[in-house]
Amino acid sequence: MKIIDGGVTAAAGFEAAGVEAGIKYRNRKDMALVYSAAPCTAAGVFTSNVVKAAPVRWDKEVVEHSACVQAVVVNSGIANAATGRQGYECCRQTAEKAAGLFGISPDAVLVASTGVIGSPLPMDRVLDGVEKLAACKAATFEAGTMAAEAIMTTDTISKQAAVQIEIGGRTVTIGGMCKGSGMIHPQMCTMLGFITTDTAISKELLQEALREDVADTFNMISVDGDTSTNDTLVVLANGMAGNEEIREKNDDYYRFKEALNHIDTTLAKMMAGDGEGATALFETKVIHAATKQDARVLSRSVISSNLCKAAIYGHDANFGRFLCALGYSGVQFDPDKIELYFENGEKSILIFKDGAAVSYSEEEASQVLASPEVRVLVDMHMGEAEASAWGCDLSYDYVKINADYRS
Amino acid sequence: MKIIDGGVTAAAGFEAAGVEAGIKYRNRKDMALVYSAAPCTAAGVFTSNVVKAAPVRWDKEVVEHSACVQAVVVNSGIANAATGRQGYECCRQTAEKAAGLFGISPDAVLVASTGVIGSPLPMDRVLDGVEKLAACKAATFEAGTMAAEAIMTTDTISKQAAVQIEIGGRTVTIGGMCKGSGMIHPQMCTMLGFITTDTAISKELLQEALREDVADTFNMISVDGDTSTNDTLVVLANGMAGNEEIREKNDDYYRFKEALNHIDTTLAKMMAGDGEGATALFETKVIHAATKQDARVLSRSVISSNLCKAAIYGHDANFGRFLCALGYSGVQFDPDKIELYFENGEKSILIFKDGAAVSYSEEEASQVLASPEVRVLVDMHMGEAEASAWGCDLSYDYVKINADYRS
Repeated sequence: MKIIDGGVTAAAGFEAAGVEAGIKYRNRKDMALVYSAAPCTAAGVFTSNVVKAAPVRWDKEVVEHSACVQAVVVNSGIANAATGRQGYECCRQTAEKAAGLFGISPDAVLVASTGVIGSPLPMDRVLDGVEKLAACKAATFEAGTMAAEAIMTTDTISKQAAVQIEIGGRTVTIGGMCKGSGMIHPQMCTMLGFITTDTAISKELLQEALREDVADTFNMISVDGDTSTNDTLVVLANGMAGNEEIREKNDDYYRFKEALNHIDTTLAKMMAGDGEGATALFETKVIHAATKQDARVLSRSVISSNLCKAAIYGHDANFGRFLCALGYSGVQFDPDKIELYFENGEKSILIFKDGAAVSYSEEEASQVLASPEVRVLVDMHMGEAEASAWGCDLSYDYVKINADYRS
Repeated sequence: MKIIDGGVTAAAGFEAAGVEAGIKYRNRKDMALVYSAAPCTAAGVFTSNVVKAAPVRWDKEVVEHSACVQAVVVNSGIANAATGRQGYECCRQTAEKAAGLFGISPDAVLVASTGVIGSPLPMDRVLDGVEKLAACKAATFEAGTMAAEAIMTTDTISKQAAVQIEIGGRTVTIGGMCKGSGMIHPQMCTMLGFITTDTAISKELLQEALREDVADTFNMISVDGDTSTNDTLVVLANGMAGNEEIREKNDDYYRFKEALNHIDTTLAKMMAGDGEGATALFETKVIHAATKQDARVLSRSVISSNLCKAAIYGHDANFGRFLCALGYSGVQFDPDKIELYFENGEKSILIFKDGAAVSYSEEEASQVLASPEVRVLVDMHMGEAEASAWGCDLSYDYVKINADYRS
C-alpha cells in the first residue's frame, strides 16, 4: 500500500470543487462538489439518530435504490435537519439542479449538509452555488482540497487521505475527505465523509466492506458523546482503474479492505484530534479483552468520559477516572486483573496493576500526558480481542465554542 | 406532608457529627458520623460500576446480611476505590473502631468514602477521626449540618432535607443528606446519600420503596455522564416514632413512599443544581411518552448532552441540539409529532412543532434560558407516560475543576 497526497480527486475520473455560496458563513467556502466522469457504485452508512436530517433521508433512498451515483453536493453552515417536509424538498431541488447541469438523473445525485440544526436552507443561494461548483470543478489536488475546506464547520484543519494498491495488475486508488469537530459520537458512522475510488467492485461487497470497516474506525471516535442528525459516510467506486470487478471475497477484496481501512482510520483520527477545543488526540487501546465487542465498548467508554478528557487536558495522571470509565462501560471484568499504562509513542508508563497503583513518577506521567498524542493502554488479561478508540481532551475552548456556536 | 428544617438528625433517636480529620483536605471537616440510639432496619442501593470502591463492597455485605445497622462513618477526600485488598481492610478497621466505641457489632457499621480514586486511606487519621466523631455526636440540627458539610468534595453547598407525615396517629420524620457534584451519572443510585427515619417499617418494604423511588429521583440526574465507583444511598429506619410497623403496601406505606420521594427529589435536584461549574439547574420533562421507560431515557439523554448543556450555559436557544439528543437516545418516535418548549417557571415558549421551528422571539427564549432554573418541556404526543431528569449547564469552570481536581 502506497500512501499518496490527495483526497477525493486522487482516484481516476473524479473531479471536485469548493466555492463560496454565502449559505450562512461570510468570506469562506461553504459548498463542495464531488463528481465522477463515469457512473459509480455507491455504498453508505448513516446516522442512527431518530431525528434524521433531510439529506440523510434523501441519500439513504439514493444509495439503496439508485443503480448508480455520479455527483455529491455538500453545504456547510446549515444542517437542513428538523426542517420538516420543506427540508426534503430542498434536497430534491438541489439534486435536480445538479442533474440538469451534468445531464444525469436526480437520483444519481447525493446531497449532504452540516451546520446548525433547525434553520431553513436559503435555496436561491444553494442553487447559485451548484452552478458555481459545476463551472469550476476539476480533477486536481487543489480542487479536492478546496472541497475539503468547503465542508468544514468548527474544524480547524481540512481532512484528506489517499492510498494506492495493486489489484489484478492494475493500480487502484482510494481517496477521501471528511469533516467533523463537534457533535461527534457516531453510532452507525460519522459526520460527513466522502471516499472515492476507481476500483471496480460490486455494490454488495462495497457496502459490506464499508459497514465492517466503520465499526473499527469512524464508530470508534467521540468528541462529545452527541450523535449527529446528519452523520453520513459514502463511498463512490467508478471502476475506472480497469481492474476485473471484485465480486467475491478473494485476495483483491481483502487488499481493497485494508486500503479502505487505512483511509478510514486516518480520517477518523484526524477528526478526533481536531475535536472542538482539542489540544491532544486521546487514544485508548484495549488489549486481551474477552471479545471484540468488549474491547470496543471499553475503549470507547474511556475516550468518551468527560472526566478522563479533562484529566488529559490538565496533564493529570488521575488514573482512577480511567478505571472508573472502564467500570461503568457495561462490560464485566475483574479490576484486580487489569494493567493500565500511559503512553505517548516514546514512553510507556505502567500505572496500575494487581488492583492498586504501582509506584510511578507523577512528573514523568504528567509529561507523557502533555504530548499531542496520548495513549492509554489497558491490558484486560481476559482473552485475545483488542480495539482502539480515539477522542480528544476537554478544554475551556470546547465550552466556549459550544456556548457561542450559533451566534 | 410537612416540610421541616433539618437533615439526618431530624428523626427521633438520630445523632450526627462532622469533624476535621486531615484525611486529605486541610482546614475543613472531612469525616462524618450518623448514629442511631436504637438498631435500624437498613436498605441501600449502590453503584453499578464494575470497579466498586471498597466501602461499597463492605456496605452491600452489611445491608444484605446484617440484622440491623446503627452507625455510618463517612470520609471525604479519598474514595478508597481501586485500592485492592488493603482498601477493604481499611473498611473493616474503621467499622471495628466505631463498633468498639459504641459497644455494637462491626457488622452494624456502614462506611462510605468519596474523593480521589486510587489513593490509600491514611488509617491513623481515619481512626483518630472516628474517636473525635464519637466524642462530639449530637442530635441537634447543627450536628446534622456539620455532618452534611463534612461529606462535601467539590460541592459548593451542603445538601439536607426533612419532612414529617402522620402514620397511624404518630408523627414520623424522614430526613436526609447527600453530597455530589462531579462524576455524577447514577445507574443504580447516586453519590453518597444518607436518609434517616424514625418510621417502623419492614426491611423488605424499605428496600422496595427505596429501589423504586431511586429510579425517578437520583437515577434521573447527571452532571457529567460518569458513573462513580462509590455511589451509595442508604436509608436507616429505627422505628422510634412508635407507629405500628409497616408490613404491607397499605395507605401508610404509600404515604411513607410519598415522603421519601420528596426527600429524594429535593436532594437529587440540589445535587444537579450544584453540579461542578454549574450556573443553572437544567431540567428536562418529557410528557405523553409511550412508556415510562421511554420518558426516562429521553429526558436523561437531553440533560446528559454536552452540547445541550453548553447551549444552556450560553443562553442559546439552539433547539436543534435538544432534538438531536432526543433522537440518539435509542427511543423510537416521529420527530414531526413532538412539541418542544423552553420554560423557567414564569414563561413557557413554544419553539418546535410539526417537524419545524415555529416563529418565536430569540431574545425572549434567551432570557428564559438565562434563568437559574431552566426547563425544557417535550410533548411526545404518543401516550400517557412522563418523567423528569435534572442536570446542569456545562461551563468553563467544569473544565477548570476537573483539569485541576487532584492537584
